[in-house]
Amino acid sequence: MTLQHYIDEYLPAIETELQHIIGTTKTEHYHGLHEMLAYAMGWKGEGAGPRARGKRVRPLLVLLTNASAGGSWEKALPAAAAVELVHNFSLIHDDIEDNSPLRRGRPTVWKLWGIAQAINTGDTMFTLAQQAVTLLKATTTPTITLEATQLIQQTCLHLTQGQFLDISYEDRADLVIEDYWPMVRGKTAALLATSTELGALVANVDSETRNAYHNFGCNLGLAFQAQDDYLGIWGDTEITGKSVASDLVECKKSLPVLYGLGKNGAFAERWRSGPITQEEVPEIAHQLELEGGRAFTKSEAERLTARALQDLEDADPQGDAGDALSELANKLLKRDV
Amino acid sequence: MTLQHYIDEYLPAIETELQHIIGTTKTEHYHGLHEMLAYAMGWKGEGAGPRARGKRVRPLLVLLTNASAGGSWEKALPAAAAVELVHNFSLIHDDIEDNSPLRRGRPTVWKLWGIAQAINTGDTMFTLAQQAVTLLKATTTPTITLEATQLIQQTCLHLTQGQFLDISYEDRADLVIEDYWPMVRGKTAALLATSTELGALVANVDSETRNAYHNFGCNLGLAFQAQDDYLGIWGDTEITGKSVASDLVECKKSLPVLYGLGKNGAFAERWRSGPITQEEVPEIAHQLELEGGRAFTKSEAERLTARALQDLEDADPQGDAGDALSELANKLLKRDV
Repeated sequence: MTLQHYIDEYLPAIETELQHIIGTTKTEHYHGLHEMLAYAMGWKGEGAGPRARGKRVRPLLVLLTNASAGGSWEKALPAAAAVELVHNFSLIHDDIEDNSPLRRGRPTVWKLWGIAQAINTGDTMFTLAQQAVTLLKATTTPTITLEATQLIQQTCLHLTQGQFLDISYEDRADLVIEDYWPMVRGKTAALLATSTELGALVANVDSETRNAYHNFGCNLGLAFQAQDDYLGIWGDTEITGKSVASDLVECKKSLPVLYGLGKNGAFAERWRSGPITQEEVPEIAHQLELEGGRAFTKSEAERLTARALQDLEDADPQGDAGDALSELANKLLKRDV
Repeated sequence: MTLQHYIDEYLPAIETELQHIIGTTKTEHYHGLHEMLAYAMGWKGEGAGPRARGKRVRPLLVLLTNASAGGSWEKALPAAAAVELVHNFSLIHDDIEDNSPLRRGRPTVWKLWGIAQAINTGDTMFTLAQQAVTLLKATTTPTITLEATQLIQQTCLHLTQGQFLDISYEDRADLVIEDYWPMVRGKTAALLATSTELGALVANVDSETRNAYHNFGCNLGLAFQAQDDYLGIWGDTEITGKSVASDLVECKKSLPVLYGLGKNGAFAERWRSGPITQEEVPEIAHQLELEGGRAFTKSEAERLTARALQDLEDADPQGDAGDALSELANKLLKRDV
């Protein structure tokens, strides 16, 4: 079986589990709340469908890891749902915090229903995520359920810590490369590390294997983000051919930008003097490249990709599911940087 | 021992437990996040102190209930901390959602640090609340810990459902008295019911007693809110002598207001025509009284108070702690309405 076979098998089960959990809110008085949750999940409202749902990478990682570690994937479904709900909760709140009008091609929850309802809908999604993981009680032991619950909680703490840094950085002109890692570890890597670790935990593997799966998810997240940050400046024209809004225009505190700020050269001077326009992008991207930002980001992405793949080898994923997990990792990581 | 003796014994232990939990966030990179959390708890920043901390009624209820039900109160400290953290998380987000500039006499978190940081700080507090309850693992059994965790989760869902209604009601002109109860059950009664139930759960009582404690907390919350709503219109001059901003000016969807709206009389007509000024308050309060809103609210508060006290009798609280719990209930409920 290839990765696509697993995706075709797992995705409908993931959606069913998510719909079951979110369906518990569809009670008297609260239909409006359920509607916002279903919109955020990509099931309802204008533009509902596959693109609005996103790729469900995190729950797929939970199930594939679980199967690769010798588990019965159905038993890990509550954990798979939990990580996806945590992800979607954080998107609802991040979109308010970042003032983003669009998400996956649709208006964000706060744009449609206002900030007050959006904050509260995010809180509801957060609660449902916490509830989801305790459903493991029915498929595993109380001890594994409690461990998984605490793992999700610790991850939520890391997410908010990463987000705290991201927001704080907006007002700071003194950022350096060292400021990048704690932010991206919290915002991106923590939930991916927990996704792969949860799969292993529910499969009840030894602590060494569980640790290897955790590290795999963590480095997968870091590598993916480093790549994404590279493509956010140098990827649009060369690879995709699309003219996307550059991270430079959006003032994103990405890996190459923090590298450049730490260099304190012409790039840093221009960055600190105010917003960058679309017209300036080629020149400023070139300046950042001259200062070493492009080569540095590329080498970091490669270094982290190699580490993630080594971690996966250490985890020693088994069978067809193991092959599919490697295929997914390579698919996520082997974009041409 | 009187209630005051218990308060003197429990309050420092509650603060220590809370500080221990929130202290886990005081790590490299995240001092600023810890500072906001400590501000919200009333420990740091301008105006820190007893008034800024609030009365800690919910954790006191957990510990007093636990002791009254035959438990060792120290073992219930993680549950006590959890309910207080849930309460403070909801205040941080409610203040953004309600656009409130002040809380316990101090600027709100969003007023000082902006909406983005305030949303995220609330999320952090929410996560810490979830983490707190799992600390019961060290003082009770895994089964009780999981039950308590699920109880807190269910309560958070009720809180967000109540808040959803509260926000929705802002745009609605067709509210009636039946719309009041689901809102106040979620926003106020749910967490008080969980506070008293958690105390009983950790004491490992039979399900009948646990149920009675739950109902006591629930009706205590409903009675308290009905009273508070009464005093928000008719209490200021008569009882406290203070000139407080009337609930009528603040457009609060309180019990007498929803009663009046359901009557569809002169009060409802005036309410629907736009904001009420301070000068109009005496006349409009009088109109609402003429339509029966005052007598109705008074009788509801009395009815719910009687039920709460009956529930407490059914729970049969034991010993000095039981007496102190009754004293606390009477103190909260026996304001002159």
